[in-house]
Amino acid sequence: MSLLVTGSIGIDTVETPSGKAVDALGGSSIYFAYAASFFSPVRLVGVIGDDCPADFLAPVRANNQIDLAGLEVRKGSKTFRWHGRYHDDVNERDTVSVDLNVLAERAPGIPEAFRDSRYVFLANTHPALQMELLGQLGDPSLVVADTMDLWINSERDALMDLLGRIDGLVLNDSEAKLLTGEPNVVAAGMEIAAAVRRFVVVKKGEHGSLLFADGRAFAMPSYPTHKVIDPTGAGDSFAGAMMGHLAAQDKTDTATLRRAIAYGTVTASFGLEDFSLNRFLTLNRDEIEVRAGEFAELTAF
Amino acid sequence: MSLLVTGSIGIDTVETPSGKAVDALGGSSIYFAYAASFFSPVRLVGVIGDDCPADFLAPVRANNQIDLAGLEVRKGSKTFRWHGRYHDDVNERDTVSVDLNVLAERAPGIPEAFRDSRYVFLANTHPALQMELLGQLGDPSLVVADTMDLWINSERDALMDLLGRIDGLVLNDSEAKLLTGEPNVVAAGMEIAAAVRRFVVVKKGEHGSLLFADGRAFAMPSYPTHKVIDPTGAGDSFAGAMMGHLAAQDKTDTATLRRAIAYGTVTASFGLEDFSLNRFLTLNRDEIEVRAGEFAELTAF
Repeated sequence: MSLLVTGSIGIDTVETPSGKAVDALGGSSIYFAYAASFFSPVRLVGVIGDDCPADFLAPVRANNQIDLAGLEVRKGSKTFRWHGRYHDDVNERDTVSVDLNVLAERAPGIPEAFRDSRYVFLANTHPALQMELLGQLGDPSLVVADTMDLWINSERDALMDLLGRIDGLVLNDSEAKLLTGEPNVVAAGMEIAAAVRRFVVVKKGEHGSLLFADGRAFAMPSYPTHKVIDPTGAGDSFAGAMMGHLAAQDKTDTATLRRAIAYGTVTASFGLEDFSLNRFLTLNRDEIEVRAGEFAELTAF
Repeated sequence: MSLLVTGSIGIDTVETPSGKAVDALGGSSIYFAYAASFFSPVRLVGVIGDDCPADFLAPVRANNQIDLAGLEVRKGSKTFRWHGRYHDDVNERDTVSVDLNVLAERAPGIPEAFRDSRYVFLANTHPALQMELLGQLGDPSLVVADTMDLWINSERDALMDLLGRIDGLVLNDSEAKLLTGEPNVVAAGMEIAAAVRRFVVVKKGEHGSLLFADGRAFAMPSYPTHKVIDPTGAGDSFAGAMMGHLAAQDKTDTATLRRAIAYGTVTASFGLEDFSLNRFLTLNRDEIEVRAGEFAELTAF
């Protein structure tokens, strides 16, 4: 089934204890699309400026599962830039600089050919913009959005409006607590789940994730790894593989969703093993299946 | 199979967002023994002063699975006291006061009748004292110890000596990182596992636990609960149920260990639901089995 992602494309500079990547390909839609592509074709809607080197998007252009018909290269604008620095404990990071650039301008339109998309992921951006993008779509089977602390703090009303219109929300544990004012993450997830149509996934980084659906809380650890080179994009990769599996199965029941979250967990764990998209460029579906089997073994009891 | 625990008995004052318990029964050996008692008879070695009210230990005296032949009531000494205050996020707490009292004196001896114990848990205390207690035992099948940041910082050599003599170590994630200087908890756990005979369990509180055994890292989430009244003793309850299951099965293979950790997780989740031992006083094995089944359902995928 058709899968669409709308989100950022960025020029990232990332420093981790393992090294540094300068002017690397990043952004939520990029990580999402690449991770999703192991499971399903994926349509990408995003905008960059005309300042990108010609080969900047080469890795996604070379992936024939990713349809870039929704990529806008805007003349006279500059591409979003982010510079982050991770601590020795890579679960902590500081933002050195952010230049929103083209992301602060009008959003890219969703091409006519993409408007019939059945599975939709609205990556983190202003909730009013997520709502506008949603309004351009026909009648999707499943709409999932991401959000962040900035919008929870500054655009709460718009965000609450959006929640009532989407099937699922994906957010971090700190964001779930912030949104609800509830220090217990299970209580927070339950409360947010009541505001969306179907489910909430609370991401806890190295501690795995919680799924809130059918009035219950499901828990899954992360894949236990000591090889973490660069955690950038892990949450978007998680969401990409999750949505890719759902679109491929064309099912949204809770059992399929839990399996999709396991694929999200495992696929994201590969992404951590190198800077930018690098690990994904050599990854194949067989490797994902082998690790998914191992993950099931390491977590069953 | 016979199960022995050596550890503290305390008079606890605990403040949480849900209320306050004053002069409540606590201490590592108490939580451990009560949780273990749902699975196996358990022998307790511990010491209190002669300042305890006559009925202070009534809940453990009333539990016919707990053998108190190793309880010493020391004349002229005072019982260990701890006063803790939890934050709104109950994963954080401050110690308001600690009075070691009798714990700063000589340790209680292990009674002759307990020296043939096959399964042994050395709850957190000075590692040289844990070693001395171990020396009083015959030839146990499985010896597991707990430790804490204080000993990692101040008694590293004694602790490393102890590790070479025990089968398993249970400790918190922050302690595992402190012991190894390794910010990645999986790498930390792997390193510690190489220093003990069989396995390491890293406890992550609300985020579950990791087991390091057979050169692999196994992950388990916590039971997802929003009902947390008092987390005091959760780690000791976890260890108690885990060891109780191993002793009852008289097996120490990794599959049994993982099942034991699941029982530890589930049993500890009940303890959180009220102050002190209160929830355990009305708990029965059937309730544990029902929740264990539910836990398996909420975590399978």
